[in-house]
Amino acid sequence: MQNIETYQKSFLSYLEDFVVNKKPKNLYEPINYILKLGGKRLRPVLTLMTSEIFNGSTSAAMDAALSVEVFHNFSLIHDDIMDDAPLRRGKATVHEKWDLNTGILSGDAMLILAYQLFENYEPKIFQALAKLFSKTALEVCEGQQYDIDFETRNDVTIPEYLKMIEYKTAVLVGAAMKMGAIVAEASEEDQNLIYDFGRYLGVAFQLQDDYLDAFGNPETFGKQVGGDILENKKTYLYLKTLELGNNAEKTSLLDLMINKALTDDEKVEKVKALFNASGAADATQLAVKDYTQKAFNVLDKINISEDKKQMLQLFGEQLMNRRV
Amino acid sequence: MQNIETYQKSFLSYLEDFVVNKKPKNLYEPINYILKLGGKRLRPVLTLMTSEIFNGSTSAAMDAALSVEVFHNFSLIHDDIMDDAPLRRGKATVHEKWDLNTGILSGDAMLILAYQLFENYEPKIFQALAKLFSKTALEVCEGQQYDIDFETRNDVTIPEYLKMIEYKTAVLVGAAMKMGAIVAEASEEDQNLIYDFGRYLGVAFQLQDDYLDAFGNPETFGKQVGGDILENKKTYLYLKTLELGNNAEKTSLLDLMINKALTDDEKVEKVKALFNASGAADATQLAVKDYTQKAFNVLDKINISEDKKQMLQLFGEQLMNRRV
Repeated sequence: MQNIETYQKSFLSYLEDFVVNKKPKNLYEPINYILKLGGKRLRPVLTLMTSEIFNGSTSAAMDAALSVEVFHNFSLIHDDIMDDAPLRRGKATVHEKWDLNTGILSGDAMLILAYQLFENYEPKIFQALAKLFSKTALEVCEGQQYDIDFETRNDVTIPEYLKMIEYKTAVLVGAAMKMGAIVAEASEEDQNLIYDFGRYLGVAFQLQDDYLDAFGNPETFGKQVGGDILENKKTYLYLKTLELGNNAEKTSLLDLMINKALTDDEKVEKVKALFNASGAADATQLAVKDYTQKAFNVLDKINISEDKKQMLQLFGEQLMNRRV
Repeated sequence: MQNIETYQKSFLSYLEDFVVNKKPKNLYEPINYILKLGGKRLRPVLTLMTSEIFNGSTSAAMDAALSVEVFHNFSLIHDDIMDDAPLRRGKATVHEKWDLNTGILSGDAMLILAYQLFENYEPKIFQALAKLFSKTALEVCEGQQYDIDFETRNDVTIPEYLKMIEYKTAVLVGAAMKMGAIVAEASEEDQNLIYDFGRYLGVAFQLQDDYLDAFGNPETFGKQVGGDILENKKTYLYLKTLELGNNAEKTSLLDLMINKALTDDEKVEKVKALFNASGAADATQLAVKDYTQKAFNVLDKINISEDKKQMLQLFGEQLMNRRV
């Protein structure tokens, strides 16, 4: 087994060779642009790592890993259009640097390219990968639609929210790992277990992200701390405050959402105080621990050595203990 | 073998059962909407017909046929956004009836659904279908990009234009037929020949569409006659006029493009006169015949009975002799 930095490095070198040097350039340049914007490459690393965990090679898993990364970046291009986002990793988004039509069409091409990356696998593996990919990709679209729907709804429940982040974020983490298991020809049982491990970890990761968006260290957190609060996003913290808070706290939170008199800093501080006072902040931390524990419980059942289980557990702990 | 109306009918009944009655409804309702807007269902009919031509069943080809139709409608949703089109088959386009984000996301989901429709085929057939599909879908994106690029270019050549319509329109006709051949497990040689037959016919069809857009009967042609001229589209007629016309004709055409003093009817009539005088109208008719003949030449080489060849030829002739 290699460490995460080594997987990242070999993935980046493979990605480097995947320059879509094809015409028309207005279709393929934006694809190269977004793929080279950087990022932690977490999902493809998970594919490579999982392949090795089930005694497959990293090189055999490389195309599947790349497919996951290409799909992830397809979803970023289209989501950035839908969110009207000007920046992605500190650089102009595709629809800003080019235009709306380029964003739509280059995104479409990336979704197709993600499928094409399975073509070197033999038919049975190909079909297993493509099936998992389609199911996952459709769920990501459904998650995105729920996220959009929630913006204009005032009755979003916690289970609905959890389903939304599971679809929008977590299933792709599970699928990235399962693809590694498929390529390594692990048993179907192990494939499904590692999928659940990744999916639970993905939910924990997103809940942690909700938490850090409010309570993270501004100097190390990648995004603007308090961003979700300023956007009035119905995060886990927000929904839990409405569930756990007393009437005064609930009313305060709803008032703060529409209060235009406050500065950004004032609003963020007041909302954070409510998240704490209501117990929602603690409940969020607890939910992160809970989903991480669910992932670790699944780990126990997988038919791999204790060494490898410990490695996966360490990886999960690192992910959850991040303060950035 | 059945006639075209019978194929249409059985396809429509299969489509009727493919109601994507899933949640979230804001994602799936637009999909049902566009799929039920109507149309000739030409592409799926070709898949069913080709399957029978190679001794396969129509029922086995149904999912492949539906995939082609779902993909075609995906491309309509996204193209309508890019073209800012308010109407499709006389009804509101998806992004008009809902909004931009719905158009993007529902389109994405349809592209994935098109792949999922191959999942009931056994792994080898699945892989063959998905590979052909990906190649074709990517070419359709490339064709759309060339079409967009051409709008702002003044040096588009005839070969470039032919490549654009081949990618944007013709390869999907070829692929629709090849999918029928794949499902029927025809020889690889026959698969490629029927693909070429469909592709040549697709080019002929699009050139005929260019011609009819200017010279079709306003009472029977589905779209506004002269629409391409009023949009200053660089069609085959336009490009041929610049190639074949004398200097006065070329200058007149370029002047007419920017002349704001004319009524729509005057502009259409003057441009049509130039298409005729320059010989471009005749050249377009000749090109239609030429590509149709190319298709028929391919037909000769396919390993099927004379009856079936005649049926395909009749189908091609009907398509090309349409005045609507």
